[in-house]
Amino acid sequence: MLDLDKIDPYLLRPVGFVRSKLKRRKDCPKQGYEGAPDAWVEVDSDFAEGLDGITPGSKVILVTWFHKATRNVLKLHPRDNKDKPLRGVFVTRSPDRPNPVGLHRVEILQIDRPERIQVRPLEALDGTPIIDIKPILKNSLDA
Amino acid sequence: MLDLDKIDPYLLRPVGFVRSKLKRRKDCPKQGYEGAPDAWVEVDSDFAEGLDGITPGSKVILVTWFHKATRNVLKLHPRDNKDKPLRGVFVTRSPDRPNPVGLHRVEILQIDRPERIQVRPLEALDGTPIIDIKPILKNSLDA
Repeated sequence: MLDLDKIDPYLLRPVGFVRSKLKRRKDCPKQGYEGAPDAWVEVDSDFAEGLDGITPGSKVILVTWFHKATRNVLKLHPRDNKDKPLRGVFVTRSPDRPNPVGLHRVEILQIDRPERIQVRPLEALDGTPIIDIKPILKNSLDA
Repeated sequence: MLDLDKIDPYLLRPVGFVRSKLKRRKDCPKQGYEGAPDAWVEVDSDFAEGLDGITPGSKVILVTWFHKATRNVLKLHPRDNKDKPLRGVFVTRSPDRPNPVGLHRVEILQIDRPERIQVRPLEALDGTPIIDIKPILKNSLDA
């Protein structure tokens, strides 16, 4: 396995990919709770051991990398609505941003093989790289 | 400014850095709500425009990159407690993980200059790179 401590310190390595019926960016709801479908998360076998202990029914944060995003964006119209005034990108949840990290609160529906997990709801495109998976802590509202 | 759409697609570019009294990893609480101090977020002037519209009192998610983390970790004892059984890293919030992304729900206390923001609580080390800032959406529990 690639030694992650020896690559460029700012280089991401996807740990898996989204498998979804959402094939085009325009088909994706802007947020998961806006009618996003179930989807599968396929974790690379190199990282499957990192899922040890994960359980159906639990809620996790998927951290994705919006690989289709435009990164040279600092101001935009929220929700692509030209009637809304331009805002700084860090005051929006647009996927177009300098580091296009996506956060998705999802429920784990089932675990098919150790490294293949069904989740919902997920508004990310098919093929979106996953860079991290985190549990939601009971004592915290964060995600 | 560097054209972010022309660099390696998986390369992060920090948009700012944490300024904190927490100077050593062992001084850092494991979570913000475990007594973490106020801290400052200094956004690089190249990205300051992205903060346009941010307001004191609002709550945001800081997305950091734990630059001191070890990335070749797939299983560990939660909270560094050897009495707890080994778990997959994706079932923990350890900073040591393949892509050491940190999520921090913080309140914005004040905006000093357009690009210098005081927040609380923040358990991240002084010098930690910030890779994104996101608003918390009213309709969502995610972060």
